[in-house]
Amino acid sequence: MGKLMNAKEYEESLRKLKLNVYMFGKKVENPVDDPIIRPSMNAVAATYENALKPEYEDIMTATSHLTGNKINRFTHIHQSVEDLVKKSKMGRLLGSLTACCFQRCVGMDTLNALSITTYAIDAKYGTSYNKRFLAYLKYVQENDLVCTGAMTDPKGDRSLAPSKQPDPDMFLHVIEERQDGIVVNGAKLHQTGAVNSHEIIVMPTLTMREADRDYAVSFALPSDTEGISYIVGRQSCDTRKLEGVTFDRGNMYYGGHEALVIFDRVFVPWERVFMCREYEFTTQLVENFAAYHRQSYACKVGVGDVLIGATQTIAEYNGVENASHVKDKIVEMNQLNETLFCGCIACAAEGHREPCGTYLVDVLLANVHKQNVTRLPYEIARLSQDIAGGLMVTCPSAQDFHSPVVGQWIDKYLKTKQDVPTEHRLRILRLIENITLGTAAVGYLTESMHGAGSPQAQRIMISRLINLQRKQRKAKYLCGIDKEK
Amino acid sequence: MGKLMNAKEYEESLRKLKLNVYMFGKKVENPVDDPIIRPSMNAVAATYENALKPEYEDIMTATSHLTGNKINRFTHIHQSVEDLVKKSKMGRLLGSLTACCFQRCVGMDTLNALSITTYAIDAKYGTSYNKRFLAYLKYVQENDLVCTGAMTDPKGDRSLAPSKQPDPDMFLHVIEERQDGIVVNGAKLHQTGAVNSHEIIVMPTLTMREADRDYAVSFALPSDTEGISYIVGRQSCDTRKLEGVTFDRGNMYYGGHEALVIFDRVFVPWERVFMCREYEFTTQLVENFAAYHRQSYACKVGVGDVLIGATQTIAEYNGVENASHVKDKIVEMNQLNETLFCGCIACAAEGHREPCGTYLVDVLLANVHKQNVTRLPYEIARLSQDIAGGLMVTCPSAQDFHSPVVGQWIDKYLKTKQDVPTEHRLRILRLIENITLGTAAVGYLTESMHGAGSPQAQRIMISRLINLQRKQRKAKYLCGIDKEK
Amino acid sequence: MGKLMNAKEYEESLRKLKLNVYMFGKKVENPVDDPIIRPSMNAVAATYENALKPEYEDIMTATSHLTGNKINRFTHIHQSVEDLVKKSKMGRLLGSLTACCFQRCVGMDTLNALSITTYAIDAKYGTSYNKRFLAYLKYVQENDLVCTGAMTDPKGDRSLAPSKQPDPDMFLHVIEERQDGIVVNGAKLHQTGAVNSHEIIVMPTLTMREADRDYAVSFALPSDTEGISYIVGRQSCDTRKLEGVTFDRGNMYYGGHEALVIFDRVFVPWERVFMCREYEFTTQLVENFAAYHRQSYACKVGVGDVLIGATQTIAEYNGVENASHVKDKIVEMNQLNETLFCGCIACAAEGHREPCGTYLVDVLLANVHKQNVTRLPYEIARLSQDIAGGLMVTCPSAQDFHSPVVGQWIDKYLKTKQDVPTEHRLRILRLIENITLGTAAVGYLTESMHGAGSPQAQRIMISRLINLQRKQRKAKYLCGIDKEK
Amino acid sequence: MGKLMNAKEYEESLRKLKLNVYMFGKKVENPVDDPIIRPSMNAVAATYENALKPEYEDIMTATSHLTGNKINRFTHIHQSVEDLVKKSKMGRLLGSLTACCFQRCVGMDTLNALSITTYAIDAKYGTSYNKRFLAYLKYVQENDLVCTGAMTDPKGDRSLAPSKQPDPDMFLHVIEERQDGIVVNGAKLHQTGAVNSHEIIVMPTLTMREADRDYAVSFALPSDTEGISYIVGRQSCDTRKLEGVTFDRGNMYYGGHEALVIFDRVFVPWERVFMCREYEFTTQLVENFAAYHRQSYACKVGVGDVLIGATQTIAEYNGVENASHVKDKIVEMNQLNETLFCGCIACAAEGHREPCGTYLVDVLLANVHKQNVTRLPYEIARLSQDIAGGLMVTCPSAQDFHSPVVGQWIDKYLKTKQDVPTEHRLRILRLIENITLGTAAVGYLTESMHGAGSPQAQRIMISRLINLQRKQRKAKYLCGIDKEK
Repeated sequence: MGKLMNAKEYEESLRKLKLNVYMFGKKVENPVDDPIIRPSMNAVAATYENALKPEYEDIMTATSHLTGNKINRFTHIHQSVEDLVKKSKMGRLLGSLTACCFQRCVGMDTLNALSITTYAIDAKYGTSYNKRFLAYLKYVQENDLVCTGAMTDPKGDRSLAPSKQPDPDMFLHVIEERQDGIVVNGAKLHQTGAVNSHEIIVMPTLTMREADRDYAVSFALPSDTEGISYIVGRQSCDTRKLEGVTFDRGNMYYGGHEALVIFDRVFVPWERVFMCREYEFTTQLVENFAAYHRQSYACKVGVGDVLIGATQTIAEYNGVENASHVKDKIVEMNQLNETLFCGCIACAAEGHREPCGTYLVDVLLANVHKQNVTRLPYEIARLSQDIAGGLMVTCPSAQDFHSPVVGQWIDKYLKTKQDVPTEHRLRILRLIENITLGTAAVGYLTESMHGAGSPQAQRIMISRLINLQRKQRKAKYLCGIDKEK
Repeated sequence: MGKLMNAKEYEESLRKLKLNVYMFGKKVENPVDDPIIRPSMNAVAATYENALKPEYEDIMTATSHLTGNKINRFTHIHQSVEDLVKKSKMGRLLGSLTACCFQRCVGMDTLNALSITTYAIDAKYGTSYNKRFLAYLKYVQENDLVCTGAMTDPKGDRSLAPSKQPDPDMFLHVIEERQDGIVVNGAKLHQTGAVNSHEIIVMPTLTMREADRDYAVSFALPSDTEGISYIVGRQSCDTRKLEGVTFDRGNMYYGGHEALVIFDRVFVPWERVFMCREYEFTTQLVENFAAYHRQSYACKVGVGDVLIGATQTIAEYNGVENASHVKDKIVEMNQLNETLFCGCIACAAEGHREPCGTYLVDVLLANVHKQNVTRLPYEIARLSQDIAGGLMVTCPSAQDFHSPVVGQWIDKYLKTKQDVPTEHRLRILRLIENITLGTAAVGYLTESMHGAGSPQAQRIMISRLINLQRKQRKAKYLCGIDKEK
Repeated sequence: MGKLMNAKEYEESLRKLKLNVYMFGKKVENPVDDPIIRPSMNAVAATYENALKPEYEDIMTATSHLTGNKINRFTHIHQSVEDLVKKSKMGRLLGSLTACCFQRCVGMDTLNALSITTYAIDAKYGTSYNKRFLAYLKYVQENDLVCTGAMTDPKGDRSLAPSKQPDPDMFLHVIEERQDGIVVNGAKLHQTGAVNSHEIIVMPTLTMREADRDYAVSFALPSDTEGISYIVGRQSCDTRKLEGVTFDRGNMYYGGHEALVIFDRVFVPWERVFMCREYEFTTQLVENFAAYHRQSYACKVGVGDVLIGATQTIAEYNGVENASHVKDKIVEMNQLNETLFCGCIACAAEGHREPCGTYLVDVLLANVHKQNVTRLPYEIARLSQDIAGGLMVTCPSAQDFHSPVVGQWIDKYLKTKQDVPTEHRLRILRLIENITLGTAAVGYLTESMHGAGSPQAQRIMISRLINLQRKQRKAKYLCGIDKEK
Repeated sequence: MGKLMNAKEYEESLRKLKLNVYMFGKKVENPVDDPIIRPSMNAVAATYENALKPEYEDIMTATSHLTGNKINRFTHIHQSVEDLVKKSKMGRLLGSLTACCFQRCVGMDTLNALSITTYAIDAKYGTSYNKRFLAYLKYVQENDLVCTGAMTDPKGDRSLAPSKQPDPDMFLHVIEERQDGIVVNGAKLHQTGAVNSHEIIVMPTLTMREADRDYAVSFALPSDTEGISYIVGRQSCDTRKLEGVTFDRGNMYYGGHEALVIFDRVFVPWERVFMCREYEFTTQLVENFAAYHRQSYACKVGVGDVLIGATQTIAEYNGVENASHVKDKIVEMNQLNETLFCGCIACAAEGHREPCGTYLVDVLLANVHKQNVTRLPYEIARLSQDIAGGLMVTCPSAQDFHSPVVGQWIDKYLKTKQDVPTEHRLRILRLIENITLGTAAVGYLTESMHGAGSPQAQRIMISRLINLQRKQRKAKYLCGIDKEK
């Protein structure tokens, strides 16, 4: 029987992986201890650490429907509306504990989407994808693994279908079928938390047509499978982490990372293949994953909590917390943040059971929620910068603060209230900078915009899911165009 | 045993009332048939009519926790989170069926708030308010009555407490205590649906201090009790209803009304008194009522449905429904409308049980929801006017359209597509005018702003309910100010 | 030599017209004294009355470039940037004096646009349109006339060109050419102030192609020419003006009106024809008129001034003018209103001389200004309703207030401060209602949206006028894609 | 006679300075060649380089009212409305050429503000500040110098006046008066471009009362005067400039910097003192400087031009430039950017002559403009990130792109259209990152918020400058409260 890993065990489990990672043009031999990557590992570790705390147990763990064992909720298949609601609350909780992306949602959302689609393919074709999938799921649950769900292909020329691209690899595809499995080529972009994962699960990125059937493929592999390489992407202010552990990093413990993942002739054994050329199921898989993942942007509410807390703190340090405009802006930040919370709660509360037993969120409301996530954090961040004051972008470095020559001047001149150490003021400003301009802004702003689909993707879904005809019937009746309701 | 009334029975029950109603400087002898009031009566009747339809039974009816009988949900005390969610859905449903205020929420919200507070007063003082209240509730449920909840006092000089006003009646208060009951004086403003109600239930409008204890009073009375007078307020475009049943009214069937209610030395028997001078419970009563009533603005989502339907229809009539900017604006209207839906669902889904057994919404989220209601309908209305085109405010009257002299010109020149009768185009434009400028704009816009408390009232509640300290602790830990979480 | 008319002379001049006017299905024999139309006549009269006041002389009058005489600026051809700036200021001034549309801009804008296009046609074809036009202009200036500029055709099926419509009259067109002139058929919509005008000047509504050359026609006629009929459109709350002069109308003096204008086989003598089939000049005429007219939405800044003044007044009457949120909202209303002012000043200040000597506004900035006018007044109105409070839409009628039976209750219970008569409170609320929901809302909101072109029309112009390539060159240089600047 | 310096001469002139500069805890011996500071020096150099180009001469140079010589406009005292308008256009021009803060406005604004206030003090006290000032101005003009205007004091405890602070140095003040001059102590914050300046001109930061008269001091000094030290502040992504000249910096040439400036017992000779203890003139000096400097945020329109150009370019590279939502967002970015342009043009066009002959902008409109600058760039940046796509924050480093191991994969997989080199795509994304999250975001966003005063500072000015009484009189007349206009 499996057990929940703790943070230390998780870290040790990563050390055993033989990942092929590159950054700044060099191979990273030891990602776990790399100063740029490590904060992102810490954030994933928080999903382990907090699952063991009694106060969070209800939210962070669940009972496996396969084994009846207690498992980390990130490996759980939602069995009820209550599960969906707890997922939203887990996102807010961890966002508020780490103030960054903790990277483990995407795997959870992939597992849940696959639980539905493998069942549906089998129902149509009598295949055994679902059986394979459940065996794999049990392995993940029992070993409490981190899976990264890999969806976004490079896409090349946006006006051409996958099979029509000049370079056939612009979408990941099957290039060879063997008796024991398949061989794939391609790449996945924007892969959050890739090098902190034990497993990588691949899905197609959009609806495939018959001509693109080689691109309709889904599978799972250990993250250090031969042929898989990771190139870590840059983030704003990433190299501050190389300056030593100074308060200029803002968030002293946590961060995120993104990677470009290359699949260079990678072999996948059949027992890890969950879709292979059943192109007519790609829409369902993509849309369900998207709906789950749009719900997952509950985490930004938690990051918003931290940003609000930091903003209230700097207001107090600056002695302006009772100015009416400051109080009003703090209310507004909360108004916007709780509006986001309403979205991720509502799409969960309105969830329903799919034929396979998995619970799915209300897809319209999940898209509406995510659309708000592409907007409101930007306004929250703007209000935070308003209250923080200009010092956030003009104050000297931590090295200057600690310098025997100029440190005294900084300490003297950046002091406000007598009981507030200047260093505290600088620390909280750096945290606000981190979330609104620095490494965490990548997650709080730009990834709020594009993660789980760019704004227009949600608008397309919304336009498809609203029932305009029903609304029109009501309007036509009320103004007398139609006599019948 | 009681039974659900149908619309006809409801109308007849109103005819039996001897209400003292004034409008345009004259007494209204027969409100039910008054052309200005009747559409509002129709809207209340819709709460009866639809409760009897099988397709809406689940949403519109409930099982009384007192009698076990099936009752109209508007007379129900919420017994579960599911009840709270259904209340939100009932609001959207009826809003979409009437495109106006159906006036019956305020009574439901008053009953639920009183169920909590009468219980709390009794718990402290050993009084029997709750017993009285439950007897009254049973009477309301068994007879399927409309109650109007009356909260807003005139307030006079806003800088003075009730007992310090030059005119002591600026807040409704006990002026005499008798063996058999109390006598009250005062007035209540903005009383939605007052003359369509069987009962009126009075509550204090704000927190009362000890000096104001005569103002801490709550009771219920038949709406035609001696000493109660109603002066119906004006609404934009109200007198179009006097022009005969022409399509210029926009909404051919439904409307709302507001009244100023005067209490001139009105006697209340003790069995109808639910609070009398227990001033320390006024805050609870006011805040719980406000929370319930802020949730009730679920109805505006339904009105939004109609406005979206009307807007899509005029786009089609104008032949511009496929213009990309029109499609995008329709999506945006839905995005905003569903954001409101998320709010009323979330505050319900996060509801909880009070000691007396009544379920209460999440108060923070209910306030957040209502705050959004003070904003988003205005933007939805603006987008609707954008798509509707200028003709909405320049097209001639229905009389002109039917005129033998100029009607042909209107028909000829306002025609767009061959298969769309000009009259249909005018009808749908009048409906949009009705909701964005006319009688229904009063409900969809201005009352969205001020009903259940003006925007600032919600902001004050939000500022009280957000836990800034908790957010600050997280921020301070993450940037290293605090070493302990 | 001509002279400036005063308000009385203007009114008398209107009485001499034999207009063919319809409203509510009946012929209006005496528009000047019709209670619904008269306030709009008063608003035009304000353009005469104030031109004679010394304090406004500089803004409201100009020196004719034809005669050297002092003329009303509404009949002036702009001879300098200063003239353009004064035009914007005149709009704000009159908007603030009338709180409604004063209807005379459209004629001024038509004259200025024609001064450019008639010159351009003559330059190409050696025609004498400009000579004709200048003779006509002199007549207008010397007699101080009101011209209504008529542009918007019904358009029928939006997907078809004028000459392809099933009904050929959906755009106004030449149906016969005679030796002494032309005969036209068609209609013009949304004709602001039509029945208060001495002259009507017709222009095409969009770019015409060769096949549509009969639709490329521009001319001027006396407003009571045979064959021209006016059907006055409805406005929100229009019939309150029929209730007698009560304060329920909000604005006691001024208003606007809109009409559908029918041209039924109307003869135009050649000396009044300014374009006839020169279809390739339609774009210029339409775009220049639109630019001038978009600038004219300076008037809404003046209406905004009144709405801000009314809002501050009700705040004072309610005793909340020092609440921080109220003060902040008043600042925000001004911020938005002055942002609009910046737009109409900037497009004027950046104006330039056309070859014919007429000064034209900066077309890009005029479109940007108008686009803001389609948005910001809606937010200003929303903020006004926020501060006004719900009483604006629930208070009883003026008849009730004056009723011997219930008037005392209204007076008693709607009183706030001792020194503020209740009637004053009601009056100012009715003015806010008038501008945000009533007859003036038609002008302040919906016509701000659609007048001088709907929002999308401006966006199309903006997308054409921004020089993206230049912006791209700068970006490409700065990031090193291009080595040369 | 002086002459305009070229960029090389400017650079050489800086090398002669003996500045006391610190960064990252170390002394910077050669700021001009420091990789972090140099881009900011380049940006100032652009103010020299472009003044010599014939195509920009009209905008970038002026004729000195002191000498009649051609001077750089940054050293000019505005002599006309046209000068004010050209100043706004110069800001947009240089913003579009550098995409960052070029740092020289603050000195220009300081000189103009002092031209007014020195004249006013002399008029009252018969002092000779203006004569001193004009001599200094001539020196600046003839030598074409960069002045940094230093206003913002640390302020310490915001609830205490300068003279009441526990540490008397929290506002810069006179600590000693000698026969030959004064000695000052204190610091100035957020000093833009400080180490690229020849001169530093100090002003008080707020209105001083009599008790604070030692704090009412203004003077100019060479930037390398003994006792002055500069501590350069951090900016987001600052250390990317240390990675070598790679395209990851986004903007290959230009940047900005901010410094904390310490005045440690600094001596100022009398001929450089422009105010000394005339506390009653501090308000005027502060407000006029603020008005001029708020106008100076014209530069952000130019940065907006670059961001729009970059955004259109990435849309084209991604092949989505014809998607309707992309085109609409590009229009919206321009709409917002040109709205800002309207603000800086309007406040200039409405400028007026002060008694001393200097022209001052319209102070209300300058504040309105700046208030919009605190908002609209944030929305423009958000829209840019929307169109840019997520790759902006996930793409690997330039070192990876150039790596022989992984570079080929990046080149292969991040390619879109065949004719767009992958490197170009990365370069334009890095420029957008630079402006919306990186070093330039400090200027485009956070300094747009706080530079020239935080948003609330403008709101206070706006509330003071709007004439509410006049607006109220108009409203009261129109609704019949007042009978007289």
